[in-house]
Amino acid sequence: MDPVKVGLLGLGTVGGGTATILKRNAKEIARRAGRGIEIDFIATLDPARASELGVENTRLTKDAFEVVADPDIDIVIELIGGYSPAKELVMAALENGKHVVTANKALIAMHGEEIFAKAQEKGLVVAFEASVAGGIPIIKALREGLAANNVEWLAGIINGTGNFILSEMREKGRDFDDVLAEAQALGYAEADPTFDVEGIDAAHKLSILSSIAFGIPLQFDKTYTEGITKVTQQDVLYAEELGYRIKHLGVARRTEKGIEQRVHPTLIPESRLIANVNGVMNAILVQGDAVGATLYYGAGAGDEATGSAVIADLVDITRSLSTDPQNRVPYLAFQPNELQDTPVISIDQVETAFYVRLSVKDQAGVLAEITSILDAKNISIEAFLQKELNADSGEADIILLTNVVNEGDMNDALAQIDALAVIDGKATRIRVESLS
Amino acid sequence: MDPVKVGLLGLGTVGGGTATILKRNAKEIARRAGRGIEIDFIATLDPARASELGVENTRLTKDAFEVVADPDIDIVIELIGGYSPAKELVMAALENGKHVVTANKALIAMHGEEIFAKAQEKGLVVAFEASVAGGIPIIKALREGLAANNVEWLAGIINGTGNFILSEMREKGRDFDDVLAEAQALGYAEADPTFDVEGIDAAHKLSILSSIAFGIPLQFDKTYTEGITKVTQQDVLYAEELGYRIKHLGVARRTEKGIEQRVHPTLIPESRLIANVNGVMNAILVQGDAVGATLYYGAGAGDEATGSAVIADLVDITRSLSTDPQNRVPYLAFQPNELQDTPVISIDQVETAFYVRLSVKDQAGVLAEITSILDAKNISIEAFLQKELNADSGEADIILLTNVVNEGDMNDALAQIDALAVIDGKATRIRVESLS
Repeated sequence: MDPVKVGLLGLGTVGGGTATILKRNAKEIARRAGRGIEIDFIATLDPARASELGVENTRLTKDAFEVVADPDIDIVIELIGGYSPAKELVMAALENGKHVVTANKALIAMHGEEIFAKAQEKGLVVAFEASVAGGIPIIKALREGLAANNVEWLAGIINGTGNFILSEMREKGRDFDDVLAEAQALGYAEADPTFDVEGIDAAHKLSILSSIAFGIPLQFDKTYTEGITKVTQQDVLYAEELGYRIKHLGVARRTEKGIEQRVHPTLIPESRLIANVNGVMNAILVQGDAVGATLYYGAGAGDEATGSAVIADLVDITRSLSTDPQNRVPYLAFQPNELQDTPVISIDQVETAFYVRLSVKDQAGVLAEITSILDAKNISIEAFLQKELNADSGEADIILLTNVVNEGDMNDALAQIDALAVIDGKATRIRVESLS
Repeated sequence: MDPVKVGLLGLGTVGGGTATILKRNAKEIARRAGRGIEIDFIATLDPARASELGVENTRLTKDAFEVVADPDIDIVIELIGGYSPAKELVMAALENGKHVVTANKALIAMHGEEIFAKAQEKGLVVAFEASVAGGIPIIKALREGLAANNVEWLAGIINGTGNFILSEMREKGRDFDDVLAEAQALGYAEADPTFDVEGIDAAHKLSILSSIAFGIPLQFDKTYTEGITKVTQQDVLYAEELGYRIKHLGVARRTEKGIEQRVHPTLIPESRLIANVNGVMNAILVQGDAVGATLYYGAGAGDEATGSAVIADLVDITRSLSTDPQNRVPYLAFQPNELQDTPVISIDQVETAFYVRLSVKDQAGVLAEITSILDAKNISIEAFLQKELNADSGEADIILLTNVVNEGDMNDALAQIDALAVIDGKATRIRVESLS
């Protein structure tokens, strides 16, 4: 059978990795897919890179719209990133009857509904395994492997840069800024690290996972997003003393009130497998009502790791070219007319346990004042650390772990505690998840 | 669309779990699959169990051959286990044009080739996700999710009973026999635990994973299989002192000499994620040339965990009913005419590092004698522990970790060491894998 012809938009990190793997493992891939998969046309602003990569017998252009309009192309891979012109290119490719593979989490999280509607209308596949957690086949696992389950919750380390920073802070006692600078030098973090350290990248990915897990529309805008820039070396060490690790987690949970969708620093017990996922690695823990807990671990970024996911999608599409569109795996795991309007609840309604750190003046009665405020909101203290008095400042750190409480109640209590005369500055609070 | 009609053979643990999930999550599953999936006919020797499970509107029979011959049935689920009559039933189901789902690792490992050939001839699916690692979608991950990769090696904790025993030995300082008795009482281990503790069950699963990973025929008979019955409490503790955990691993590796396929107790560094997979849980670590290391973790057994995998297969088949048979995912990941005859090498040819424990009489020169024997075979000592002299026996334990050596050379050296007058009894040796 003739090879499937692929048009590649973008020859950056992931584009290069994809081209390299397709060339090196061409035979292995064809032995699986039943036919060859060939890059026939590449859009890149840097044609020299194609020869550097050893890409042969491939047409090159600087105009990506030429590729999506080319009649020979069966599948378009969009690896340009960002919203525009990625969206226009994907829509044009679909309009022209081409299946689409993308690694673009921002595009899917923001414009997925419109893209899937067009693909559905045209009977085409839009595949996006590479958009979440790089090479880990988490979309496939959730969408197909766990199809029997009512998913209860999932929690993921889905941003490698953030995990690298937090891992280094714990393992080497380094400060946030110091590690971030190294991550930028190593190429793990962008020059503008906002998307990574403020949790936006993770929120894009989480909204995709949440939609697939629960059968709800993509709702990036409803995702609560808190970064790791305020996590201090001190909090990392105190957490460890209490038997916890701080990880930047994306958490999606089905509750009676609605769906929780939130990205924030989180204390998790160090005995959990996911607490031991370090460096730039990613992992997603999924709790299904039938299967129980399953975990998926691997490289969340990188040229060939992400390329691996892109090519898995190419193979899937190659195999399903002859399948009736209505029998293909639905874009968001559930049939398009079966998505439910379960609301995503606001962070005020979420219930979690909390880690709270306070700087208190060494003064009798301070603990009694704090506990009476917490008591009034039915917040109990599950663990407690009091550190030695700092002779210079005349202050001591107090660390509390609370029971599971309503976020709104916690905010009210902390506002009162912050107003106490014996408290210096504001309380630091980090959510705690047992993940059991 | 009419629901897909399923015939279920066997209503034991997994059959019960499957029926329970299909009933409880019927809507969720249909929202994904695009049509309902209904159990229409059950073969069980215990019809009362069907009412206990709340299975309704389902025909019952004690004759499984009636189910595989029934014209209304689209898909047969074989959950009887063992070789016969499971094989005859699966072959008859295929002969009668029915797709087959099975959790039967022994059947696939031993008779997979014949079964797949018949299914291929008839254009039918035989799906077996549930046969390896229960609810973990590892077959799907390897066969589809990692389709871009040249798999280099995989290593799995794929027998929950064995992992429970080794975990308890380490965590609670208990003896093998003691924990085994508890595992039997808890229902984790069979009355005859041979398949679990001697590694036969793991070898069945490993031969399936190896075939799918490397595109080679199923070769259970070539799998080197060593159980955990000889692992002592002492070895578990010495390993820990050296920074290792002992796990019963299935390892498959592509080497220049051929494919390694082996199940044996293994020391792995405690810092590896898979070293921290405890209790009855399973995990498989896969090293691909493009994606790097990925790990899949979850429950390897249990009614609903395994049922989750059975139903994932049902949903896949439901979606692919209209697909051309030649475009479906191949049974063993590679197209049937693309399997390669790469030989599975014998254990003598395998190269690993070793943990060696010796009881030596406290006598000058003993270490020199041992090292000179090892030196002659180019075996070097990477780590060394000498324990205190036991006053009663007049002997002391010596523990060595070697470099990576040829198994045959190690055997020769140990035969010479065992023959030394200063050595009491035989050396204990356990393979060591760095998994990096």
